[in-house]
Amino acid sequence: MATSIFESQILGALFPVGDIGHLFTDRAELRALLIVEGALANAQGTLGLIPSQSAERIHKASLEVQFDPFQLRDGATQNGVCVPSLITLFRESLPDPEDRDFVHFGATSQDIIDTALMLRMKQVLLKQEECLKSLLSHLGDMAQRHATLACVARTYAQNAAPTSFGATVAQWGMPLVRLLEELKEVRENVLFVSLSGAVGTSAALGEQSDGLRQEFAKSLGLNVPPAGWHTERAPLSALISWQMSLCAALGKIATDVMDFAHSGRALVSLGKSGASSTLPQKKNPVQPSAILATIRYAQSVQGCLLQSQIHGDARDGVSWFTEWIALPQMILASSSALINARDMIEGLTPDKTAIAREVASSKGLIYAEALTFQLASDMGRVAASEAIKSLCAEVAANDERSLLEEAQKRFPALSTYDPQTALGDAPERALAFARHVKDSLP
Amino acid sequence: MATSIFESQILGALFPVGDIGHLFTDRAELRALLIVEGALANAQGTLGLIPSQSAERIHKASLEVQFDPFQLRDGATQNGVCVPSLITLFRESLPDPEDRDFVHFGATSQDIIDTALMLRMKQVLLKQEECLKSLLSHLGDMAQRHATLACVARTYAQNAAPTSFGATVAQWGMPLVRLLEELKEVRENVLFVSLSGAVGTSAALGEQSDGLRQEFAKSLGLNVPPAGWHTERAPLSALISWQMSLCAALGKIATDVMDFAHSGRALVSLGKSGASSTLPQKKNPVQPSAILATIRYAQSVQGCLLQSQIHGDARDGVSWFTEWIALPQMILASSSALINARDMIEGLTPDKTAIAREVASSKGLIYAEALTFQLASDMGRVAASEAIKSLCAEVAANDERSLLEEAQKRFPALSTYDPQTALGDAPERALAFARHVKDSLP
Amino acid sequence: MATSIFESQILGALFPVGDIGHLFTDRAELRALLIVEGALANAQGTLGLIPSQSAERIHKASLEVQFDPFQLRDGATQNGVCVPSLITLFRESLPDPEDRDFVHFGATSQDIIDTALMLRMKQVLLKQEECLKSLLSHLGDMAQRHATLACVARTYAQNAAPTSFGATVAQWGMPLVRLLEELKEVRENVLFVSLSGAVGTSAALGEQSDGLRQEFAKSLGLNVPPAGWHTERAPLSALISWQMSLCAALGKIATDVMDFAHSGRALVSLGKSGASSTLPQKKNPVQPSAILATIRYAQSVQGCLLQSQIHGDARDGVSWFTEWIALPQMILASSSALINARDMIEGLTPDKTAIAREVASSKGLIYAEALTFQLASDMGRVAASEAIKSLCAEVAANDERSLLEEAQKRFPALSTYDPQTALGDAPERALAFARHVKDSLP
Amino acid sequence: MATSIFESQILGALFPVGDIGHLFTDRAELRALLIVEGALANAQGTLGLIPSQSAERIHKASLEVQFDPFQLRDGATQNGVCVPSLITLFRESLPDPEDRDFVHFGATSQDIIDTALMLRMKQVLLKQEECLKSLLSHLGDMAQRHATLACVARTYAQNAAPTSFGATVAQWGMPLVRLLEELKEVRENVLFVSLSGAVGTSAALGEQSDGLRQEFAKSLGLNVPPAGWHTERAPLSALISWQMSLCAALGKIATDVMDFAHSGRALVSLGKSGASSTLPQKKNPVQPSAILATIRYAQSVQGCLLQSQIHGDARDGVSWFTEWIALPQMILASSSALINARDMIEGLTPDKTAIAREVASSKGLIYAEALTFQLASDMGRVAASEAIKSLCAEVAANDERSLLEEAQKRFPALSTYDPQTALGDAPERALAFARHVKDSLP
Repeated sequence: MATSIFESQILGALFPVGDIGHLFTDRAELRALLIVEGALANAQGTLGLIPSQSAERIHKASLEVQFDPFQLRDGATQNGVCVPSLITLFRESLPDPEDRDFVHFGATSQDIIDTALMLRMKQVLLKQEECLKSLLSHLGDMAQRHATLACVARTYAQNAAPTSFGATVAQWGMPLVRLLEELKEVRENVLFVSLSGAVGTSAALGEQSDGLRQEFAKSLGLNVPPAGWHTERAPLSALISWQMSLCAALGKIATDVMDFAHSGRALVSLGKSGASSTLPQKKNPVQPSAILATIRYAQSVQGCLLQSQIHGDARDGVSWFTEWIALPQMILASSSALINARDMIEGLTPDKTAIAREVASSKGLIYAEALTFQLASDMGRVAASEAIKSLCAEVAANDERSLLEEAQKRFPALSTYDPQTALGDAPERALAFARHVKDSLP
Repeated sequence: MATSIFESQILGALFPVGDIGHLFTDRAELRALLIVEGALANAQGTLGLIPSQSAERIHKASLEVQFDPFQLRDGATQNGVCVPSLITLFRESLPDPEDRDFVHFGATSQDIIDTALMLRMKQVLLKQEECLKSLLSHLGDMAQRHATLACVARTYAQNAAPTSFGATVAQWGMPLVRLLEELKEVRENVLFVSLSGAVGTSAALGEQSDGLRQEFAKSLGLNVPPAGWHTERAPLSALISWQMSLCAALGKIATDVMDFAHSGRALVSLGKSGASSTLPQKKNPVQPSAILATIRYAQSVQGCLLQSQIHGDARDGVSWFTEWIALPQMILASSSALINARDMIEGLTPDKTAIAREVASSKGLIYAEALTFQLASDMGRVAASEAIKSLCAEVAANDERSLLEEAQKRFPALSTYDPQTALGDAPERALAFARHVKDSLP
Repeated sequence: MATSIFESQILGALFPVGDIGHLFTDRAELRALLIVEGALANAQGTLGLIPSQSAERIHKASLEVQFDPFQLRDGATQNGVCVPSLITLFRESLPDPEDRDFVHFGATSQDIIDTALMLRMKQVLLKQEECLKSLLSHLGDMAQRHATLACVARTYAQNAAPTSFGATVAQWGMPLVRLLEELKEVRENVLFVSLSGAVGTSAALGEQSDGLRQEFAKSLGLNVPPAGWHTERAPLSALISWQMSLCAALGKIATDVMDFAHSGRALVSLGKSGASSTLPQKKNPVQPSAILATIRYAQSVQGCLLQSQIHGDARDGVSWFTEWIALPQMILASSSALINARDMIEGLTPDKTAIAREVASSKGLIYAEALTFQLASDMGRVAASEAIKSLCAEVAANDERSLLEEAQKRFPALSTYDPQTALGDAPERALAFARHVKDSLP
Repeated sequence: MATSIFESQILGALFPVGDIGHLFTDRAELRALLIVEGALANAQGTLGLIPSQSAERIHKASLEVQFDPFQLRDGATQNGVCVPSLITLFRESLPDPEDRDFVHFGATSQDIIDTALMLRMKQVLLKQEECLKSLLSHLGDMAQRHATLACVARTYAQNAAPTSFGATVAQWGMPLVRLLEELKEVRENVLFVSLSGAVGTSAALGEQSDGLRQEFAKSLGLNVPPAGWHTERAPLSALISWQMSLCAALGKIATDVMDFAHSGRALVSLGKSGASSTLPQKKNPVQPSAILATIRYAQSVQGCLLQSQIHGDARDGVSWFTEWIALPQMILASSSALINARDMIEGLTPDKTAIAREVASSKGLIYAEALTFQLASDMGRVAASEAIKSLCAEVAANDERSLLEEAQKRFPALSTYDPQTALGDAPERALAFARHVKDSLP
């Protein structure tokens, strides 16, 4: 346990966040803020709003100057935001006093903080995309390899009907494919600069504020928002919404893997599993537990971000501060779930023997629906349904019997029935998913 | 207080839900389920999967048969889902015994329940769209009418700088415009039929399951999903996400209206306001309170819907049941916020005198930034900033003075300064919003 | 699906709320409000604050008068609270005009609404207590009957070590015993009258306000609060907190029952289980799913109640309205979980054969820790641990072997080892729980 | 922004956590784990369960040995818990090989982790208690000093009736007094050792497990739980519940302070207030915003802790891991709110002039209820109510008039009315609170 588990020396690798962790350090924050101030001056210089030489010098300095995050502490505590102190420090660091006038010209603190956040969110999405692709690639291979491997599908934790292992994997992967495809739109709706001035009226930015926003956005590789977003947090909502959908998709995988790993099933083997301090025989499914815990946390933290989508006034300290506290934790939690899922899937192997054993131990009852439909062509569905239902009861009461064999014995129409047909379109869906992954990944 | 406030005879009009309430009754549910069973038979008849005469008779009966919801109670309690009992009842009601085989052919309960849900969600979105347009139309008029009405913008609940009342209204309305525009995409991502069979493999639906889904969807005016969604609840996520964005946008309006209505400000008059049981002078801002309460509730209920996006197995009773309980409450809460917001805005009038009084009582301090920028062209920004800051302190300490007058007295460069220029692009943004509304509404 | 699932004709018995549902109807609300107004007049008459004859007549009328909830609708919509209209109606209904002055004398709407809420919460707690006792009684019997029935305890869903079925039941029941014991304190901290006047200063109640609150509380069978609670919602917090602990305890039971019911385990049989619309062999664990869904919902709804513990001003419309919407839903959800849990446990039987089969199929590995400790007395713990660990690996790799037999073969010190000793204090804890239940229930 | 805002070099003092932060470091965690292992051996030595010399040496080593948290990283990642690796390291560090057998004897990882958590929660409660006392002491002084200072109480953000500033402060403080008084019971219900062995049956702890738990608890200054709490997290619930009540109480203070600080009211001056990067005149209420943001976060994080009160099996990785992630964040957030509240209150001064101005500007309407009751003794309440109500309307429509003066002019019965009597018991409640604080603090 540590203040933030993602930084814990003891537990940090159980909840890994990879490079994404670096994006939320004080130094990364400070660096991003300076880049934004530099880009603003640069854009203003380009448009002739401030002297171009000052603009160049400010831009250059913004990339080179070094401050210690601690230098911003007192000001941030006093003002509730670190930008005023940063500007003072930055101005003082400029050798040419005439440049000082042109730092942070017409902007407000929130413009700088929010734009600097988006610079880092851009990196977050890149890293998550990379990891998502790698996860999908593993899933695609797995779906293809096991497209026809018959296994038991459960509903309400009860054996229901057959499916294929590959189709189950496809079911895991399809939402991830869609999330990958949505990323382009997400970036367009999320990665905005903010530049609207003190109360969102661009009053101090002058008449060219539209042009300035475009130049500013271009130089930072971000987009121009349709409107100021000081108080309308739709960009954050779109980001959070994607993270939540990611969590839902990863949660499905981890839930199923956990179920597959139950004692008595052990349908999959995990690359990593945990020992106990006192039970020598234990192999605990640590990774899916870690994934589900981070998802539960991410979903919970989302609650206050949802509340904080409502900003009162033209700036709302409570909602904005809440974002500062909660957003990094939420992003780190979803990132950790993603990284752990990729690692887990990379190490996961279905145990064909165990899977076949589960199919066998179902006493053929999982074929009940299929047999009913097969028999229906002979005797009508309602009658077939009653016949098979009564046979199910008989089989269930007798340890030695299997529905499949009994049905084939009793009903000539079923004598040539091939249980592999009961898989429906499962094999095909597994292969379609595998193709889809191959097509969408380079 | 009543079991569900939206049905309360006492409080139901304080939290109005209009026709949307009817969509969640037992009778509406039952009707939708029968329509879905009828459409399924119809589609199967069209494709020749079941006898076309049976299909026609089933379809016709599905539209005409009348059951009492209570007839489904025992079965629903026993099975956890009402479809098996409904099928039995429906089959028994068919005069022609040979048709009975072809009711619910190859489908599973979840296919029927989820499709019937979407039939009603389609209506919900229609009703919400209508109300949203009406709200936007009022906002558009208001923004246009008050585009240049100067008022005080606050940040952190402190007077900050001037804006216009119309621009504030535009800030309220722009997210709603975007939500209206998004509706098309939302419908495409939400309003799906479900037809995947017992464990999502379409096994009992036969080889033409793709064609069948298309026919089925067409006849219901719904879309064909890219994949089965028994366990992947992306369609619901997209619906919920839109409702949450709607709540955020409405919450902003209600929060601001509440702030405007504070004693001592009273910048707006509300069409409706509430009396007290003991304080004869009171006029309480009831509507914005009701809006914010329903939003808080909707956001909170969303929490369990988020968790329930993760479905274990090929059907997850816990997650599915949670949707049944929570989704209607969430939709009704967001609908109530929307209806109340429309009514509130319809009755709302800015009080120009009170608004002007607030501008005046700011002692001109809200022009501090504008004066600084104006002065900066004369003496450089850092020097101007210091000059104005010191003048602000002086003015704040002296009840009689105004920053505007003092600044104009002291600095010749400011003598012709027109405070209306301090509005920045606020008037223009108000008008742009008004035009945008006019263009997008017929 | 219905507006509120707890009132649904179709699904209401799947999520039963018993008599508790009646406590949240409009009529029950109206009745409680009138009782409170009557009791207030009565108490004021007793203390001579109003004419005693008026007091008597008001009190009598409060018990007899009949209004239709709809009569309060317009006023409630206008004022955001129904009390002003109710007072008007009630006053008009009094035959003796001189009595009208003394209705609602010195109180504020919130006093009446909050006290009327507590009258009904008192009933809620009574009903829940009754159900809790019945649940505990079943659990006590079950724990006693199966105190020594060895079964496999799992950790992380993996077989870990032996316990007894009765001890598992005791583990379910102990938190419920404590919740039952806490009820006395909960009632003392929750069931308060409210009587503090318009802004909590009792200004219109006169100098005897303390005495009046006592008389008022006594006549209603409620307690006198340590301070006004218009804005300090500690009484609701205490109520909610108990409901949440109840949900946690019930959730544990349902989670374990669900796990026990998994296909391939089937360690328990449920009195009720559900059929599928297409799978004739299915028996779905409907009740534990319903319990967990209502708990998930109750926990989620608690979120907005938590936020609404913070009331701004001397009365906060947003927080108060949120309570009106959310509290009934939360209480009904936890009540439904409780009722379903009692019914489920009443119908639940452990399947001794299945339980023994699971113990057997663990290949004796669940005795690893016990064997290690047994062997440790011979060779030291670290050495014993290594010996048993290596034997575990050997046994796990070989389908035919059991750790117990192998260990007894190899190590003479273990030859007389009795596996029943590996249960630890499980049997004793089961019996202690059973005794505890018997002692605490009449 | 930093991974965890509470450790941020830039923002850490805006959200201060004081010494409580140190309790959640890796080193504090590691130290606590070793102390627990040492205390276990010590207790087992005392009872003769392990050789007393080994026990002494293990105990001594546990206090002296130094590991680097990184040494536990690989094991924790592999096993999902760091205890197995810690035991290995610790055993290897013991010079006397015979002692190694007696480290962690009969315990399970969860026993150690949970007990070590409670060691630190004990410190958390001590630190919080200290800060709470200091906050209360400031509030007590403030309530006493301003017991009779008349101010306007608002309901629904509208002027309602008079109260005193001291009574408002008392209203803030009373819940905190109760929270302080509850601490004793909280400690009894929270600060437990855990010692139940692998699956909660104490199987490897031997027959003296009860005595051992007592000895173990005594040596750590913790309590013996009524039952094992591996899966029944009531101790954590009680802790969380107290933190949530603390947050609610602090949230009320911050909400009211924020409202008092609104532009146009400015009823209080804050010791600290924040500057803007572009608006030279701004003084932002930073501290109440920070308090409310941390409370919003704490409440949101509580959501996943609530879910995680339900532990499946005899150990539930998902729920347990969730606690590890969420609990420190929640405790730090509530601690930060508490520290900020104490600092804010220490620096807060009511502005008597501004408060009097607000009373004056209410046009006497806040006396409407009081005047009604005064007049009622003359003409009956219903008639008085109508008379005053009509006078209110008249006054409200006329800028020059005050209800107080007009009423005194019109109604002889009111000519000697003293408005200070309208404060009700407010002054007395303020003083009672101040006395209560003095009595309960040394």
